[in-house]
Amino acid sequence: MKNLLSMKDLTIEEITTILDRAEILKQYGIRELPVNYMVSNLFFEPSTRTKMSFEVAERKLGLETIPFEAGSSSALKGESLYDTLRTLEEIGMDVVVIRHPEERYYEDLIGKLNLAIINGGDGSGQHPTQSLLDLFTIKEAFGGFKGLNVLIAGDIAHSRVAKSNADALTMLGANVTFLCPSEWAGEFPSVCEWEGVIEESDVVMLLRVQHERHDGESRFTKEEYHQRFGLTVEREKMMKPGSIIMHPAPVNRDVEIAGSLVEGRRSRIYKQVENGVYIRAAILEVLLKGRELTWRKSLRVPMY
Amino acid sequence: MKNLLSMKDLTIEEITTILDRAEILKQYGIRELPVNYMVSNLFFEPSTRTKMSFEVAERKLGLETIPFEAGSSSALKGESLYDTLRTLEEIGMDVVVIRHPEERYYEDLIGKLNLAIINGGDGSGQHPTQSLLDLFTIKEAFGGFKGLNVLIAGDIAHSRVAKSNADALTMLGANVTFLCPSEWAGEFPSVCEWEGVIEESDVVMLLRVQHERHDGESRFTKEEYHQRFGLTVEREKMMKPGSIIMHPAPVNRDVEIAGSLVEGRRSRIYKQVENGVYIRAAILEVLLKGRELTWRKSLRVPMY
Amino acid sequence: MKNLLSMKDLTIEEITTILDRAEILKQYGIRELPVNYMVSNLFFEPSTRTKMSFEVAERKLGLETIPFEAGSSSALKGESLYDTLRTLEEIGMDVVVIRHPEERYYEDLIGKLNLAIINGGDGSGQHPTQSLLDLFTIKEAFGGFKGLNVLIAGDIAHSRVAKSNADALTMLGANVTFLCPSEWAGEFPSVCEWEGVIEESDVVMLLRVQHERHDGESRFTKEEYHQRFGLTVEREKMMKPGSIIMHPAPVNRDVEIAGSLVEGRRSRIYKQVENGVYIRAAILEVLLKGRELTWRKSLRVPMY
Repeated sequence: MKNLLSMKDLTIEEITTILDRAEILKQYGIRELPVNYMVSNLFFEPSTRTKMSFEVAERKLGLETIPFEAGSSSALKGESLYDTLRTLEEIGMDVVVIRHPEERYYEDLIGKLNLAIINGGDGSGQHPTQSLLDLFTIKEAFGGFKGLNVLIAGDIAHSRVAKSNADALTMLGANVTFLCPSEWAGEFPSVCEWEGVIEESDVVMLLRVQHERHDGESRFTKEEYHQRFGLTVEREKMMKPGSIIMHPAPVNRDVEIAGSLVEGRRSRIYKQVENGVYIRAAILEVLLKGRELTWRKSLRVPMY
Repeated sequence: MKNLLSMKDLTIEEITTILDRAEILKQYGIRELPVNYMVSNLFFEPSTRTKMSFEVAERKLGLETIPFEAGSSSALKGESLYDTLRTLEEIGMDVVVIRHPEERYYEDLIGKLNLAIINGGDGSGQHPTQSLLDLFTIKEAFGGFKGLNVLIAGDIAHSRVAKSNADALTMLGANVTFLCPSEWAGEFPSVCEWEGVIEESDVVMLLRVQHERHDGESRFTKEEYHQRFGLTVEREKMMKPGSIIMHPAPVNRDVEIAGSLVEGRRSRIYKQVENGVYIRAAILEVLLKGRELTWRKSLRVPMY
Repeated sequence: MKNLLSMKDLTIEEITTILDRAEILKQYGIRELPVNYMVSNLFFEPSTRTKMSFEVAERKLGLETIPFEAGSSSALKGESLYDTLRTLEEIGMDVVVIRHPEERYYEDLIGKLNLAIINGGDGSGQHPTQSLLDLFTIKEAFGGFKGLNVLIAGDIAHSRVAKSNADALTMLGANVTFLCPSEWAGEFPSVCEWEGVIEESDVVMLLRVQHERHDGESRFTKEEYHQRFGLTVEREKMMKPGSIIMHPAPVNRDVEIAGSLVEGRRSRIYKQVENGVYIRAAILEVLLKGRELTWRKSLRVPMY
């Protein structure tokens, strides 16, 4: 593996390698790598949790994290993403994490760069590290994926999480159902009633209502959305024993999920956050392992 | 001690513990802690000196400082401060420093989180680390607090420094007098003439005129303020032997204090800046000492 | 050497010292310094490559880099640059890198501070670290400077690179010619035709057309500029054997240089980027070597 761009590129073997490594890191702790690799997190869209989660994983691996400020960058001077990345490669970056508003921004970059690219989210496209941490959390709860019923509810068309997860879960043998207002389904088949699906679901995965992507055009108030498409306290009671609730966060409490369920017994929401660090560390390890050591890299222990 | 939120919460013993530890750190230097703790500085209001002072203290203690960008954070997506902090806790943060425009923002958080919180300033409320570094600087000059006359001059009502310091100094046995334009006194008794108090003061502590909190509503020009309420060159000559001048900075030269006095012989203004690093390191040590080591923490020395 | 402010201040011996040290660092790698120095990068103007290049050099030298956010700094509260730097000195900064929109911003600071200042660009003034990396790249290609013909093409009047380089290259024995639209020549003699000079040049150094400094006032379209003053594919064919192309970047492809030449065989553009890290590390080493060790500094190896 050279880059991690989309769940569609991953084989079952590659997914399994990452999940297994994350499990070991969670059990024994993340250790510093013996080589002084350098990384930069290029977030052209706002992010707290994904960026900080990567930053923690990177520091625990002993990587040097070089700050990149999208807001004051040369991109503002009209530089192409390729030229920015070529520059980062020349100053010594081994890997970059990129979040970018443009879908498939990475297509023009493939095969032209030596640094490794991890996609931290591309427009309404994919978000593979979120998807892998979701898979990890599901596997932690059920031991595997075959035959699981996964219900994904919310803004399917705009969600990179929905698409990444549906691709991967289906490949791994789970049954994925989308639930959403009909105009948010995009090209995907979906249902718009909870009844009949909530009772059968092993995993109810809620998506954030992205107010910022629906400026003024929403036909629901928050209360209406919650009543029609949110996981209410009443609906949670219909869930079967052992079933779990997931959400990529940040959560709009009492919109897509009742506030009292966020830290309830079925919820894996903050467990997902914790697992994200291990998944990202595992991905970084796998990608960096593939790189040859160049003379520019020194071992960590300095000689005085 | 689990958090440091307000000077009002501290006992004399706790203040003494912090001041004593800071003195040792100043004398022998700040050393790396043997555990790889993680910290994040959440500044929802602009700051150079407080934020960088914490950052330096944290690095010298060997903490991993994980950047947090308030301007591009999930808070913008409507997430509550509690949910943001729960996330930071899950990704591994041991302690956070928070500056927030809302007074007593921390009230809803107490008892709900495992990470330690240091208040770096809440609206017009408190600023306990500034207060502790001020106490440290006074103790360094006079050996103690009993019977000292401390004059605090400036925008009392809007100043978190004034209130934090008055609370603590009074508890420690000093006599605090406020001097300010009558409309800036808020609920506190104050005088509005220098004559009669300047001659008796051991400490003259000036506050910044916060132009940004008085948009267009000020009835003084800068020159008028300086003449009426600033520490002019003439007034400094009336100060008694051994008395000192303090200011939390940044200074408006020739507004609250004559420019030529800022680095004069009575001034402790830059000494306060230096002392801030030792105080903040001492606070971090005290709070982290209270935390149990979890299996997630590893010792610093890596095993290859 | 205490500061690095302008190429005009440097003697030939000082330039040689820095170039020689950078050559050694490039050959053997950059190592951690044995003392835990602290640095901050104060960029009051946007920058990706210069700032990140410094950051990489600093990390490889083992410096603690303390983040400074110009956008939310006390400078916004009206603090002078001197007072900001005095504060940074007190909290322990050994060296600062400053980029500032004001030409010769550093004049009021000289001799008043203990911390070392590296000028990362002052308005339309100088950019000495860029200049030194350009010299390094030329020396790498030709072994020296005597008798070399260097053609600098572009917005001479607004370019800090043009002036820094012309000063230094002339002192080192090269012949510098400026090529530009007549209204961009400023006070400097220049030519406005490629014919007659391109054939004789050993180095063709292109400058970025700074759209952001010519708001709406440019009399050229991008295509017109490229045809008249850019390095076109046709002009490159007229260059003599062994001659090279340089550019400080970021590049406007197909404006000052044909896009296909950017990574062509004559181009040293990305080599310049790589060399920048070694030059900046060499400068930091030279400046820090001049500082006495104070008791505040500890050796890197911690004692537990």
